[in-house]
Amino acid sequence: MRSPIGEPPLVLSRHAVRVGYVDTDKAGVVHHSTYLSYLEAARIAHQRARGLSYHDFEVETGLALPVVEAHLRYRSPARFDDELIVESWVEEVTRAKVVYAQRVMREDEVLVEGKVVLACVDMQKGQIVSIPPRIAATCRKP
Amino acid sequence: MRSPIGEPPLVLSRHAVRVGYVDTDKAGVVHHSTYLSYLEAARIAHQRARGLSYHDFEVETGLALPVVEAHLRYRSPARFDDELIVESWVEEVTRAKVVYAQRVMREDEVLVEGKVVLACVDMQKGQIVSIPPRIAATCRKP
Amino acid sequence: MRSPIGEPPLVLSRHAVRVGYVDTDKAGVVHHSTYLSYLEAARIAHQRARGLSYHDFEVETGLALPVVEAHLRYRSPARFDDELIVESWVEEVTRAKVVYAQRVMREDEVLVEGKVVLACVDMQKGQIVSIPPRIAATCRKP
Amino acid sequence: MRSPIGEPPLVLSRHAVRVGYVDTDKAGVVHHSTYLSYLEAARIAHQRARGLSYHDFEVETGLALPVVEAHLRYRSPARFDDELIVESWVEEVTRAKVVYAQRVMREDEVLVEGKVVLACVDMQKGQIVSIPPRIAATCRKP
Repeated sequence: MRSPIGEPPLVLSRHAVRVGYVDTDKAGVVHHSTYLSYLEAARIAHQRARGLSYHDFEVETGLALPVVEAHLRYRSPARFDDELIVESWVEEVTRAKVVYAQRVMREDEVLVEGKVVLACVDMQKGQIVSIPPRIAATCRKP
Repeated sequence: MRSPIGEPPLVLSRHAVRVGYVDTDKAGVVHHSTYLSYLEAARIAHQRARGLSYHDFEVETGLALPVVEAHLRYRSPARFDDELIVESWVEEVTRAKVVYAQRVMREDEVLVEGKVVLACVDMQKGQIVSIPPRIAATCRKP
Repeated sequence: MRSPIGEPPLVLSRHAVRVGYVDTDKAGVVHHSTYLSYLEAARIAHQRARGLSYHDFEVETGLALPVVEAHLRYRSPARFDDELIVESWVEEVTRAKVVYAQRVMREDEVLVEGKVVLACVDMQKGQIVSIPPRIAATCRKP
Repeated sequence: MRSPIGEPPLVLSRHAVRVGYVDTDKAGVVHHSTYLSYLEAARIAHQRARGLSYHDFEVETGLALPVVEAHLRYRSPARFDDELIVESWVEEVTRAKVVYAQRVMREDEVLVEGKVVLACVDMQKGQIVSIPPRIAATCRKP
C-alpha cells in the first residue's frame, strides 16, 4: 500500500476543515466518501488563493474541471469535531489535465492521501479541451 | 409534538429504501438530513407510478417543483441495513403548490413523518407559476 | 407560508458557511437537504461559543441531543461558492428539549428559516431524559 | 489513464441503483463522491447474495471492513433518474484484505471503474487483524 503521492513541496496550500456530525458514520469515524468533498473544497480554495475563482471560471468560459480519476489511501480515521488541514499542491499540468496531490492532516499526522486528476471539459459539447493558458498558469503557481 | 400529517388514505404509494452505511452517523442511526433524500426519492417514485416522469417534466417544460417547506417529526431512529417503506400521498394541490404527506415505516412502526410542500417554478425566471393541468391531475391521482 | 420562527434577538450566534460544489444539485442551487447540515454545524458552533463542546458532552455524559423535529421554510436558493451566515438562537429550553431558531442569510437576505427541536436522550437506553442543568444553562445563554 | 481493474469474470454480482436528484451537482451530473456510496451499497449486496450479512458481521465479531484504498476512474457521467447497474467482483483476498473490482454501468456503457481495498479491523483496538476464515470464504465465492 504505497502512497499515491510524493513528498509535498515547501510551498503548498492549507485549507482548514472542521469535521461535522453528518460527516461521520456508525463506525464513529468520517465516512470514506466524505473526504472527496473535503479535497474538492481544498482545491477550490487553492485556486482562489492564486486568484482564480472556480465559480467565475465555469460561468465565463463554459468550461469545467471535473474529476476524471481519484486515488485515495486512507491511513487513519478522522473523527467528529476534529480540526483538519487539507494540504494541496499541483503535481502536473498537461494540455488538458491538472493533477492534484492532497493530504488530509490532523496536526502532524497524515490521515488520508489523495491524487485527483481533473480534465478540462467543454460543458456544452461534453468534450475534453485544452486548458486555457491563464488557468494553466494559475494551477502551476506554487 | 403533534404529527405534521393526518391519517394516510386507503390508497397510497409505497417506496422501498434499504439504509446504507453512508446514511448513518456516529450515533449509529440514520442522520436526520438523510430522510429528506428518502422522501424525495419516494415522491419521484410516486409521480412515476402515476405516469409522470419528473425528469422529463423538467426537460420538457423548463419548470421544476422545488421544496419550499418541510416539516419533519422524528419518532424513532432507522438503522443500517433496515428495510424501510416510505408511504406518500398528496394532501392538497393548489394553483402553484403540491403538499405531500409522507411516512417512513419499518414494518408497522412509523419512524419519521413529514409534510413537504413543493412549488412550481419557472427555472429561467426563478418565479413561481401555475402548475400545468396535466401535472396537477397526475399529483391528484390517488 | 408563515415563518416557522419569530424575530431574532439582538444577541445571536453567527456561523459562516461557504457553499461547496457537492452541496448543489442539477437545478444549480443548494439541495434542500444540505441546509440541515449547515444548521447542525451552526448549532454546534453556537454551543462551542458558549463553552459547551458537544463532542465532549456526548463522551462524558452518555447523552445526546438528536433532532426530533425540524421545520424548514425555503425562501430563496443559495448557490455554489456563496458565503452564507447561519444565525442561531435558542427559543426555548424545557425539561428535556431545546428549541433552536435558525436563519440562513446571504448578506441581508433570508434564504432559509428553520426551527429545530432537540431532545435529550440517554444513548444506551434510547430514552428521553432531563437535560443536565449545566447544559440547559449553556443553551439559555444569549 | 488506464483502467484500475481487469476484465470482469463470467460470474459477478449486479446491483441496481436509480440516480436520485440529491446525487447530482450543478454540472447536471452525478457528483464524483456519490459513486463511492453506490460502490459501498453494491459490495454489501454482493456479500448478502453470498450469505454474509455485513450488518451481522460487525455486531457478532466486533470487526469491520473499512475502505483503506480507493482508485476510481470516471469515464462518462451518470445523470438524474438513470438506472445504473454496479458490477462487483473480488479480485483478491489476502490475510487481512479484500480487493474489490467494481464497474458502474448504464446499459453496455462503463461509466466508472473502481478498485476498492478493504482491511479487516478490530473496532475496539483499531488494529488490522486476520479475516475470519468464514468471511474470507464468502468473499472468494464467485
